[in-house]
Parts: sequence; structure tokens; C-alpha cells
Amino acid sequence: MIEYRNVRVALLGAGSVGSQVARLLLEHGDELAGRATAGLELVGIAVRDLDAKRDADLPRELFTTDAHSLILGADIVVELIGGLEPARTLVLEALGSGADVITGNKALLANHGPELFAAAEQVGAQLYYEAAVAGAIPIIRPLRESLAGDRVKRVMGIVNGTTNFILDRMDTLGESLEDALATATELGYAEADPTADIEGYDAAQKATILASLAFHTTVPLVAVHREGITQVTREQVVAARKAGYVVKLLAICERLVDTDGTDGVSARVHPALVPLGHPLAAVHGAKNAVFVEAEAAGDLMFYGAGAGGVETASAVLGDLVSAARRHVIGGPGLAESTHANLRVLPMGSVTTSYQITLDVADQPGVLATVAGLLAQHGVSVETVEQTSGVVSSGVTASSGVTGQGAGEATATLVIGTHPARESALAATVEALTTAAVVNSVTSVLRVEGA
Amino acid sequence: MIEYRNVRVALLGAGSVGSQVARLLLEHGDELAGRATAGLELVGIAVRDLDAKRDADLPRELFTTDAHSLILGADIVVELIGGLEPARTLVLEALGSGADVITGNKALLANHGPELFAAAEQVGAQLYYEAAVAGAIPIIRPLRESLAGDRVKRVMGIVNGTTNFILDRMDTLGESLEDALATATELGYAEADPTADIEGYDAAQKATILASLAFHTTVPLVAVHREGITQVTREQVVAARKAGYVVKLLAICERLVDTDGTDGVSARVHPALVPLGHPLAAVHGAKNAVFVEAEAAGDLMFYGAGAGGVETASAVLGDLVSAARRHVIGGPGLAESTHANLRVLPMGSVTTSYQITLDVADQPGVLATVAGLLAQHGVSVETVEQTSGVVSSGVTASSGVTGQGAGEATATLVIGTHPARESALAATVEALTTAAVVNSVTSVLRVEGA
Repeated sequence: MIEYRNVRVALLGAGSVGSQVARLLLEHGDELAGRATAGLELVGIAVRDLDAKRDADLPRELFTTDAHSLILGADIVVELIGGLEPARTLVLEALGSGADVITGNKALLANHGPELFAAAEQVGAQLYYEAAVAGAIPIIRPLRESLAGDRVKRVMGIVNGTTNFILDRMDTLGESLEDALATATELGYAEADPTADIEGYDAAQKATILASLAFHTTVPLVAVHREGITQVTREQVVAARKAGYVVKLLAICERLVDTDGTDGVSARVHPALVPLGHPLAAVHGAKNAVFVEAEAAGDLMFYGAGAGGVETASAVLGDLVSAARRHVIGGPGLAESTHANLRVLPMGSVTTSYQITLDVADQPGVLATVAGLLAQHGVSVETVEQTSGVVSSGVTASSGVTGQGAGEATATLVIGTHPARESALAATVEALTTAAVVNSVTSVLRVEGA
Repeated sequence: MIEYRNVRVALLGAGSVGSQVARLLLEHGDELAGRATAGLELVGIAVRDLDAKRDADLPRELFTTDAHSLILGADIVVELIGGLEPARTLVLEALGSGADVITGNKALLANHGPELFAAAEQVGAQLYYEAAVAGAIPIIRPLRESLAGDRVKRVMGIVNGTTNFILDRMDTLGESLEDALATATELGYAEADPTADIEGYDAAQKATILASLAFHTTVPLVAVHREGITQVTREQVVAARKAGYVVKLLAICERLVDTDGTDGVSARVHPALVPLGHPLAAVHGAKNAVFVEAEAAGDLMFYGAGAGGVETASAVLGDLVSAARRHVIGGPGLAESTHANLRVLPMGSVTTSYQITLDVADQPGVLATVAGLLAQHGVSVETVEQTSGVVSSGVTASSGVTGQGAGEATATLVIGTHPARESALAATVEALTTAAVVNSVTSVLRVEGA
């Protein structure tokens, strides 16, 4: 048995991830020491309530409510409290004391990343956050190190397990959004208040982190275009599969060239049609996956569990071993790289394709009018499918927009566009919505990964 | 523009990967410097033949035939010559001089890994080899660092693009092995002498590297059980799909407990039946993927291009940026971890399942006899499918083993076993081969990932 010098580890938080980190650290200490070339001594666990029930059986004497004192005696601080405060203050305190910090807190990084990275760099400490995006899946280190010699063009991630679980059930079982959400809540995949997941806030936080990392550019959370899945209907999902697509909530980070020729980046979260043959289409249930397109490496995908206490603990412990090794060797930590400092472009600058489904009057000249509207906005049509002879439903027919009587024959137009600027596509949809020959715009979905 | 201190990079070899590394380094030098916090100065490229044709247009003055002198003036040496010599000597020379070394040479690592790692550790240098396994896919760094806090149970990799291309064509297009190989050769996926690929030698080298890394244990190449794809028939592939499987050549590295209770590891390469729902089943064409099962993280998969000059160059350049950063910071490199030093167990100790297809006499008592043979060897049957009334083909019927006349009715038995020790399964197949009621053992394939 080799004797290693001890590195003092303080854990903040003992929730589902924190308690598993503590358990594994205590159970596999010797094994981890061999890899870290340092003993990993868990000096304490700071919690709000000493008597709360934990997911793992941990020694009572490790717990304390005094996070500040705990941090002062630590070489490495693991922050798994979540939320913005007191997490932010404690992480700044830890970095200020020269400790390396490991966090799985996506909200904290998405909102205060630059402040924290600057604090780390100032003292030569390092901030590790593999657990903050896609749980157990190694994606931060591959982007930060393995792909450091490449130029990332695009990152497309299924980074929210709850919404993937819901959309997957809508697709494979034909469930409604409401039913699928109810099941997700029942099985513990969705929280009592599912807003953060289904409205895309969680995915947007991850998009900020991924985009900043992939493009060596600070991409603020406010710059992330965000749409959730609440408007996705069973009908859309069924029609998508028939057309060879599956609906996924994607976090997309892209390198772009703006109309004025300047390089830029964008980040966005929205439901999208993904072709069935795309590797992301095969990501089922609550699994996560991040698809990366790089100039030299080509297409890569990283797949696995995006959440879960013990799964996420794996990512935290990987960071912990790295941090401990670094502590033994010494020297400044790896600073966050924002050297590229590209312009962050708004959603309107993104180039994408739309699939637009219209309920139109079944009469001569309608297709010509619709096609004309698209052409006016500089949007080129790739595919059109018209299903005639559909009798319009009461709701649409009685909407009165086009003055049709109930039961009048209508047709369904499904238009696939060529890639165009988002601003042009959005204006096209706006124009279609108010066009006389269009009863209603039934569905608008972006197509990604085609 | 920040001015960085320069790190001197020597490149050995300018083949398909080397020439792309040089090109990208020259083209993206400023960008890479920002990430490495060091200028990456390509001081020279050592080649055998100064006048050979290259894949990229590179400055003539960089080339030299004097690798030894080039190495002496370098901080980082990138070895992309391939093969054992002179690569081994040059890498040892570079490490001996204190330079960090980056290599994509799987044969070198599989045959001389421990010697090279020891040489690096002695001087505090680091040996990087992301490009040696699965080309562009980040798998070395995730195993070495991201999963350093976890315990890997199993690695299953499609790590040879040539064989995956061939098996995929047999599966999706119904081609014979010969036809698919001919296409692979034509398209440049297979070399003129395809032995290293189709006999599994290439995959076995990668299995050695993956197993050593995943289990923190030196797993020598001779300990890797190896079977290629040359015995795989179109009939097997068709029958596999009908039964819900796809045939893949897998490199499998497992942590095992031997019969005497000791922990051990094993590595093996062979064709296997993979259930269609398994993520590895969806890996098509010449793509690679590595599926990792870890105790805490659960199932992970890493997917992408396993070969190609520019793709593999991405992995080399990622290592180069890491090495340059390390050079700026100083301190000893990350040594190869073999602290676990587990026993390397032979193939007979592996636990797996077989799917055995038999051509048997269609008479009462045959199933009982066959089932009895399996039971004798301690192998438990999970599924049996009998197709009766098959008229035996001339070849089988005239083989005379069972004394049947031509055209006698035979039956096909497809037996799926429960997991059992490989030694017991092999002995069972041996006994079946010589059993009087068995005309022939048509197919034996291991089932993995079920």
C-alpha cells in the first residue's frame, strides 16, 4: 500500500448527487487515491439541516452547518447545493481561499460563469464542472481538451432528460403531452413544478455553458433563444414520424457567419424535427446525448445518463481525481478560454429550415399564392405535399378569418423550406398567418440535422 | 494579439494523418495558441523520402530526413510514422530528452506500451495517445480522466471501421463477405492486404490499450483473445437480423471475478450478435463507437469517425494543445496508472452467452440428447427454436457422419444459452460437434450487450 499525501475535500450539499459523492468517496477511497496519486480526505459535509434524510448512510460526525469554516480548511471544495445563493458566495469564498472548486450547478455557471472563472484565474485555481451538463456523460472535458485542436462548428444536444422522456412517449406510445408529463412526474423524471424542464430553461442554461466552451466565447444566458415543448402536439409528433422525423428538444450552439461577413455564434433551445436516421433520433427515454460537428473530427456523439444521483456523482468524482492530481503537481489551473471572443448573434441571424403545415382553402391558385409569399421573403421551397379534399374542422372553419362556411373543403399543405435566415422564415410564417387563402398555420417546426 | 512563449513541435511522419496535422497547425496556429496559452512552432517534419507526394501542400523547408536532430531541438514530439521501428526508438529518444510525446501508433502502444510509459514517467514527461484508438473520437481522455472517479465494468467497442463497413453491407445490402470486402478495398476503407483488419489484429491492439486504461492494469497484447470476421457468413447475418440481432466485430474489455473469487480482467475481439435495440447496433458504415459500462455512470457511448487523415489529426491536435499547456505550467506529466494491477484472465474465464445453430436428424429424442449434452457441461438453455422438415443439403447429408442417406429429413435447432463460462460453452460446442444426432454445427456466435 503506497502512502499518499492527503488532499482535503469539503463537500457542500448532501442531496441526491452529494450524498452519492460522499458515499463513493468513502467506499472507494483507496482506489481513487491510486489514480489521483493523492489521498482524498473528506473533511466535512456542509448542509442546511443536520437531520434531513439522506440517500446514503454517511457518518454523522462529517456533517456541519458551518460551510464557511469548512471551506477554510479545504484544498478542494465540491459545491452540490444547486441554485444561485448561497452557492455563488460559497464558491467565490472557496476560490478566493485558493481552493479548486468542483460544481454541478448549471444555473450558477449559466448566470455567473464569467465572474467565477475570473475569480479562479486570479488565484490560479481551477473550476471544474463536468457534472453541470448531461450528468454522467463526459462532454465538458472532451470539448475543453480533446477538441481544443479543432474548430467546433455546431453542438446539438438532447440535454434535458425530462422533455426527452415526454417526447419519446408521445412518439413511441402516441401519448398526449399531458399524459406523458403525468407519467414523468409519477416516475420521478419530472419535478412537481416542471416549468424549468418543459419550458426549456434548464436546456438554455446548458446551451450557454456548451456554447461558451465550444466557441471560446462568453455566451450569456440572455442571448439564448428559448422555446419549450408545451406547444408540441401529439398530431405534430405523429405527422413527424410519418414524414421520417422525430421531434426532439434540442440545445443548438452554432458558429455562424452573419450577413455582414463577420464570424459569430448563436445558442438556442427549441423543439425540432430530427431525421430518423440521425444518431440523435435514437436517443430514447430520459437519456441525454450531445452531437458535435467539428471541422476536422467530423461528427461525434456522446451518449449516456443525463441525470441521477449516482450517475452524476461519477462526473463529480472524475473532476475530483483531476483536481487532486493537479493539487499534487501544483501550478496554475486551466483557465476558461474566451480568447476567440466572437460576436453573439441573435436568433434572426441563424440559418435553418422550417416545416410549415397549413390548412388552406381547396381552390385553384392557392399553392401559387402561398409559393409567392415564400418567394417574396426570399425563402425557397424544398418540398410541398398537398392533401386535398379535407373537410375543415369546426374550429378552423368557424374562425371566420377567410369567411368560409363550416364543412367547406380545405386542403393541407406541408411545406419544407430550404435553409434560410430565421428572420426571413419568421416573417414568412407571419405573412402566411394573415394570408386570405390560409385558414390556419397548423404547425411550424424547425428541421435540424438533415 | 497576445504574444505567447513558443513551444517547439517536431513532427515525425507526413502520411495521411501527419500531413493534416502539419497543415492545420500552420493554418490555425493563432487560434491554437490562444487555447494552449503557448505558440505552437512547427520546427520540422521528419520523413524518409523528401520527394514523396503529400496530402497537403506544406513548406518544403520544414522537411528533413534527420529525425534524431529534429527531436533534440523539440519540446513536444508528434510520432505519426506508424509501425514498431523506427517509431519505438524515436519515441524513446524523445522521452529520454524530456520532451512530451504524442502518438497515434496503436501497434507501438500495444506492443511496447509499458516500456514507453516507464520511460516517460522516469523523466516526468507525458505520453499522449488519443489518436491511437477510434480516430477522432475522444475516448482515451474520458477513460483516463472523466471516468477516473468511477469503476469501469466493461468496454465494448466497434473500433475497426473496415470490418464494420463490411458487416454493415452484409446486413443492410445482403452482400457476401467477399463482395463487401471488394467494395471496401475499392473505396479505400480496406488496405491491399486486409489481414490486420479482417482477422482482428487491429482491433486486438486497441483492446489492449483500452483494457489497460479502463482497468488501471497492464493487459498485454498476447492476453487478448482474437477472432476475425472471415468466418462470418451471409447466412449468419441474415439469420441474426431475423432473430433481432446484428453481427458486429467487438473489442470487449471486462472486469471479471474468477471462479476462485479473485478479481480479474479480460480482453477479447470477436464477432458477436448485438441486439438491434443496443446503441452499438446503430453504428453503420465505417463509423466507430465505444460503449462503456461503469458502476456509477451507467452506460455511456462515444461515437464518431474511427479513421481518416483529417479526422485523426483532430485528436492529435487536441493532445498537442494539452501538451503545450502542460509545458507552460511545468511539473511532471500524468503517468499511466497501473495501480490496480488486476489479474489478466484467459478467455476460458469469461462469462458470455452463445447462440448455437445445429443441423440435426429430425427424429424423436434428438432435442433431449442435445439438451442433455448442454446440461452435462453446466450450460443452461434460454431459448430453443426448432425448424423441422428441412431436407438436408447434399453436402451435409453425404458427409456420412451420422450415416444418413441423401435427402433424409433434418431439423434446424437454434439454441440460445444463458450466460456461462466460455470454457464450458466451448466444451459444449466440441461435444455437440461429435454427437451422433448432430449432422453439423452450422453457426456459433456469442451474444453481447443483451
